[in-house]
Amino acid sequence: MYKRIDGRKPTEMRQVKIRTDYLKYAEGSVLIEAGNTRIICAVSLEDKVPPFLRGSGKGWITAEYALLPRSTHTRTARDAAKGRLSGRSQEIQRLIGRSLRAVVDLKALGERSLIVDCDVIQADGGTRTLAITGAYVAVHDTLARLVKSGALPKLPVKDFVAATSVGIVKGEMLLDLCYAEDSVADVDFNFVMTGKGKFVEVQGTGEGGFFTKSQMDAMVALARKGIADLVSLQSKTLKRE
Amino acid sequence: MYKRIDGRKPTEMRQVKIRTDYLKYAEGSVLIEAGNTRIICAVSLEDKVPPFLRGSGKGWITAEYALLPRSTHTRTARDAAKGRLSGRSQEIQRLIGRSLRAVVDLKALGERSLIVDCDVIQADGGTRTLAITGAYVAVHDTLARLVKSGALPKLPVKDFVAATSVGIVKGEMLLDLCYAEDSVADVDFNFVMTGKGKFVEVQGTGEGGFFTKSQMDAMVALARKGIADLVSLQSKTLKRE
Amino acid sequence: MYKRIDGRKPTEMRQVKIRTDYLKYAEGSVLIEAGNTRIICAVSLEDKVPPFLRGSGKGWITAEYALLPRSTHTRTARDAAKGRLSGRSQEIQRLIGRSLRAVVDLKALGERSLIVDCDVIQADGGTRTLAITGAYVAVHDTLARLVKSGALPKLPVKDFVAATSVGIVKGEMLLDLCYAEDSVADVDFNFVMTGKGKFVEVQGTGEGGFFTKSQMDAMVALARKGIADLVSLQSKTLKRE
Amino acid sequence: MYKRIDGRKPTEMRQVKIRTDYLKYAEGSVLIEAGNTRIICAVSLEDKVPPFLRGSGKGWITAEYALLPRSTHTRTARDAAKGRLSGRSQEIQRLIGRSLRAVVDLKALGERSLIVDCDVIQADGGTRTLAITGAYVAVHDTLARLVKSGALPKLPVKDFVAATSVGIVKGEMLLDLCYAEDSVADVDFNFVMTGKGKFVEVQGTGEGGFFTKSQMDAMVALARKGIADLVSLQSKTLKRE
Amino acid sequence: MYKRIDGRKPTEMRQVKIRTDYLKYAEGSVLIEAGNTRIICAVSLEDKVPPFLRGSGKGWITAEYALLPRSTHTRTARDAAKGRLSGRSQEIQRLIGRSLRAVVDLKALGERSLIVDCDVIQADGGTRTLAITGAYVAVHDTLARLVKSGALPKLPVKDFVAATSVGIVKGEMLLDLCYAEDSVADVDFNFVMTGKGKFVEVQGTGEGGFFTKSQMDAMVALARKGIADLVSLQSKTLKRE
Amino acid sequence: MYKRIDGRKPTEMRQVKIRTDYLKYAEGSVLIEAGNTRIICAVSLEDKVPPFLRGSGKGWITAEYALLPRSTHTRTARDAAKGRLSGRSQEIQRLIGRSLRAVVDLKALGERSLIVDCDVIQADGGTRTLAITGAYVAVHDTLARLVKSGALPKLPVKDFVAATSVGIVKGEMLLDLCYAEDSVADVDFNFVMTGKGKFVEVQGTGEGGFFTKSQMDAMVALARKGIADLVSLQSKTLKRE
Repeated sequence: MYKRIDGRKPTEMRQVKIRTDYLKYAEGSVLIEAGNTRIICAVSLEDKVPPFLRGSGKGWITAEYALLPRSTHTRTARDAAKGRLSGRSQEIQRLIGRSLRAVVDLKALGERSLIVDCDVIQADGGTRTLAITGAYVAVHDTLARLVKSGALPKLPVKDFVAATSVGIVKGEMLLDLCYAEDSVADVDFNFVMTGKGKFVEVQGTGEGGFFTKSQMDAMVALARKGIADLVSLQSKTLKRE
Repeated sequence: MYKRIDGRKPTEMRQVKIRTDYLKYAEGSVLIEAGNTRIICAVSLEDKVPPFLRGSGKGWITAEYALLPRSTHTRTARDAAKGRLSGRSQEIQRLIGRSLRAVVDLKALGERSLIVDCDVIQADGGTRTLAITGAYVAVHDTLARLVKSGALPKLPVKDFVAATSVGIVKGEMLLDLCYAEDSVADVDFNFVMTGKGKFVEVQGTGEGGFFTKSQMDAMVALARKGIADLVSLQSKTLKRE
Repeated sequence: MYKRIDGRKPTEMRQVKIRTDYLKYAEGSVLIEAGNTRIICAVSLEDKVPPFLRGSGKGWITAEYALLPRSTHTRTARDAAKGRLSGRSQEIQRLIGRSLRAVVDLKALGERSLIVDCDVIQADGGTRTLAITGAYVAVHDTLARLVKSGALPKLPVKDFVAATSVGIVKGEMLLDLCYAEDSVADVDFNFVMTGKGKFVEVQGTGEGGFFTKSQMDAMVALARKGIADLVSLQSKTLKRE
Repeated sequence: MYKRIDGRKPTEMRQVKIRTDYLKYAEGSVLIEAGNTRIICAVSLEDKVPPFLRGSGKGWITAEYALLPRSTHTRTARDAAKGRLSGRSQEIQRLIGRSLRAVVDLKALGERSLIVDCDVIQADGGTRTLAITGAYVAVHDTLARLVKSGALPKLPVKDFVAATSVGIVKGEMLLDLCYAEDSVADVDFNFVMTGKGKFVEVQGTGEGGFFTKSQMDAMVALARKGIADLVSLQSKTLKRE
Repeated sequence: MYKRIDGRKPTEMRQVKIRTDYLKYAEGSVLIEAGNTRIICAVSLEDKVPPFLRGSGKGWITAEYALLPRSTHTRTARDAAKGRLSGRSQEIQRLIGRSLRAVVDLKALGERSLIVDCDVIQADGGTRTLAITGAYVAVHDTLARLVKSGALPKLPVKDFVAATSVGIVKGEMLLDLCYAEDSVADVDFNFVMTGKGKFVEVQGTGEGGFFTKSQMDAMVALARKGIADLVSLQSKTLKRE
Repeated sequence: MYKRIDGRKPTEMRQVKIRTDYLKYAEGSVLIEAGNTRIICAVSLEDKVPPFLRGSGKGWITAEYALLPRSTHTRTARDAAKGRLSGRSQEIQRLIGRSLRAVVDLKALGERSLIVDCDVIQADGGTRTLAITGAYVAVHDTLARLVKSGALPKLPVKDFVAATSVGIVKGEMLLDLCYAEDSVADVDFNFVMTGKGKFVEVQGTGEGGFFTKSQMDAMVALARKGIADLVSLQSKTLKRE
């Protein structure tokens, strides 16, 4: 059997920890960790929406994603130093935003915006999926406060949302890739799913390899199991509060 | 049955036309059209590779994607006027690059780069998938010329690659969405596949809707049929030359 | 006698073709070709004007000019990739804008703007002058539609406008330079004239050479003849519609 | 007596905590906290120097400083989103760099660079001075590793360096201002001093007020006491390792 | 005794000349010279304030600072060519702005802004302090005109403000450093003081050296003398008008 | 007869003054004035050429042009603040560069570059033509020093070059337009000519008007007279040195 670098079984996720209210000033925030990957997700609430939604009565959720320069093995230059956001950062923050919007009732939110900043403190693979999983909790906390304060009559949340990766490394199918695995994977999938087990996003790419329908089916099954565990953790975290 | 705006059956693709050698100066170029969507794909060959590949003996393929301002219903401002590439453009050009690299033997290409410019003259949905389908032919032509000139001993192409979209609109599954369909789709998938029917990329998103595994399976089947037709057209086009 | 690379006589223009309504969504558009030079001119109509004209009752016409990367012999990097518009592009688009504004009655246009995108598909010399010649037809078509729809009582067009180049290459005066000629010309003039034979713009430069008044006079005469032919083509094109 | 918002005496600093080796991949890193202010200082070691030092045999230390968007009471837009570094960020990172270079023997360091990233997780005043205090420890750790690995014969460190602020609020002189104090201070000083009590930097500004020489003397005395405590903590932290 | 490059005594300033109304269109302007350093300070008056002051009834003063490319020994590239303002320029213009705001009664100014452009024609050290000294006169002139025109009932100026530098070069304390001295100074201070001898800003840095409290005291005394002379010159200049 | 705002006759130029060696550090520099227009032209000499000339044995001359913010009636924002060079600035600096290159023997100059900074201190019309006239003297001085120092065997200058404007205002033909005239001109020409009376550049534009060949001829004659005077002043200035 394939030997994973951190001793996990192929179908085993890294241990995930979520610490809520990590920041004092944000309307909602978590520190989420999976193995060596660590991300701060912070929600800012604004009483206005982007121009295309003004007067629509609907709210909006958007995300920003960045790596701290020394979150990575060798230093990654800041996007600010280069004067432009990298393509990778933009792609990831668009994905996070779509995933969160999928499970929030934007009509019920009203003309408010949530900006979710996902700052990666340490990056050991799976940052985009872990950011989604953590951001969901921070968003939920923010919305719960709006209910508590009377600004909203009830929680405008339709379902949980969480995400994980599955890949094929040297012929073996692995759940929740760490960086060492991700960088040599032949196939790499990210799945975003709801608490009820429906899909929000599926992104699969053959990095120097192709994949078949039956491989895809197997990866779906593996992701489903992992995401169910993440949703269960989210649920426990929210109840604990 | 669902009535498509252009009279097609749900499982019917738009007619695709490929005109090769569309530009006089490019090393390979096509004008590809599907319904009202029209894209120029132009390949530039350079005898050097990006820094991370220097001395590796391997080649590289990269893509750039842009909309002409008036390719769209209302004018889209140029990225140059804004001083930065939009997130959408970056996401698409990264996808095109990965798809092409998947079917070219970069080792056999040697330390050369192909830059594939995909400029959308008119956009009526499906620009990213049509760009991949057309770019493949332009890349093939460029490489065939390298063989013809003796620069390469044989064609470093492993398989065909083509792409299409499938979506769910008002509960109906539709192949090859035009813009009017795409903008109201609940679920939207892009599939990139090889001539042998393997997957290179799968990107599915629930835009304001979720999707199930069985829906995904049905969309895969529909895309497979469409891509087979595209590969057949690519093959005929290349033989005709 | 000097032998031109494409067999033309010194005083002979390249054949010009204009295809109207080239784009489906633009309010007016043409594909104009002269020899190997090919440009798409697309007009966008907006019901507002720049800040300095608000409340003035006057309209405005502005242009943007860009080369597709592979319109040129070797690839030209996109301005967007460099994050700024090149000096050459800005100079040309300012010229196109001035030339069009000169023949349109901006007062009669009312507080509306036309943005004219001139995208060069293939560049073999003379792109700025051909862009003006083609843009005039696209602007005319846009304005004619405003009349047809009843938005304007009559066509706010004062005259035709067209442009061509004249240069001195190895002592020979040549009309309508192609790229191979332009790149070795000692003197290079662009003339923009109206249908009635008046001047709108004259730009002459001694690229590594000087020129005399009598040479200038001869170039003016040559340009006049060429522009008369272009105006005649514009007129025929507009009647044909 | 003036009542400070967090109950401190005027001459009392906030409690400072330093956690070393906070990041797995950085060559040296700390999490430093003073009250609600929290900063990650991460050192990256490079075997090259900026162009102006090449061939000089001397090393270099530079710093980058950034606020996480939600480190502040209301969200601060990222410099990357604006495409340029703010004046305040540049001013602070130049100060941090100078302070660290003052106590490191750059000749003995050899042609190596240290890049010190100071990322503010939470900002409650005093971020620039706390960043210097924390960065010193992270730099010391990095250099100690170079000694341990044999790359350097001995530690190229000349002295400790630490920093704090003193201000005048409603006539009262306060040590180590928190944000609520800083934002209403009439006079605001930052002092950077060595372990031996010499000055590296003094920056004082009358924000809507002036100050006299005798006030400046009193502020110097207060800062000296605070910095001595910080150096003592740095020393204990480094011994503990 | 230390021999200064231009023959001055250690405690001697360079001769300063101020020419008022140097520019025809600015609301207030001076050409100020100290030795070879020459700066144009030009004030623009606007009847609006930045967003954060709108409706506050208060005015604002801001500064911009730039070097002409050939003000320096070797050419300094323009910030515009690099597309961003250098950190040094930003730091200086923030200092100039703070210094001027300190002596103007912004409440009495009302909702007006002064923009003070300090353009260095020739730079031989001390540009930031000379800019403050000159800008004060240009601001005073602008405000005096507002009084003369009846727009303001009385001059909203609380005191003079002027600035100079003191440094330690090879152990000698020098007043008003020229470039040759500044570039080798171990310690470098800039002092901004009012006509009544109070401090507005103190910025001292040990460039490759530390400094003691008693050295700082001596530098303060030296600066005080120099600034008194500058204020006297400002006073004479304003009376002369 | 048309009454000019400054009392000049239609065919009369403003008085031009040239002060050489205006800057201490530039290799050549002048302050040139025509009426209220004042420009500093400063030449920087570099012992290298742009990439496209390396190894060619040929030199290069390039120009940069900028307005000081308060050179104009109302403040003009700096290009640096906007992060990009304006189209107008680029157009002008390209014109200045071409004009100077036309009269310098770049082959004889060898692989050296001259960068000519033209900074407008005060702008009252005609800045681009006055910049050319002044820059010629500064370039000549720089080259004369290269001859004097033995770096060049003889002056690589082929002829004088100077420039002026001619326009049609309310039907009257005027030489050397000031701003008030330029802003209402129907036709506006800039001429760049050599000492021998040949043309280097001709740029004419009908700003809201057209012009005929006979008007153009009259404008040429008027410019010729003005430029002869400018060349005579240049000649006297250079002899005086």
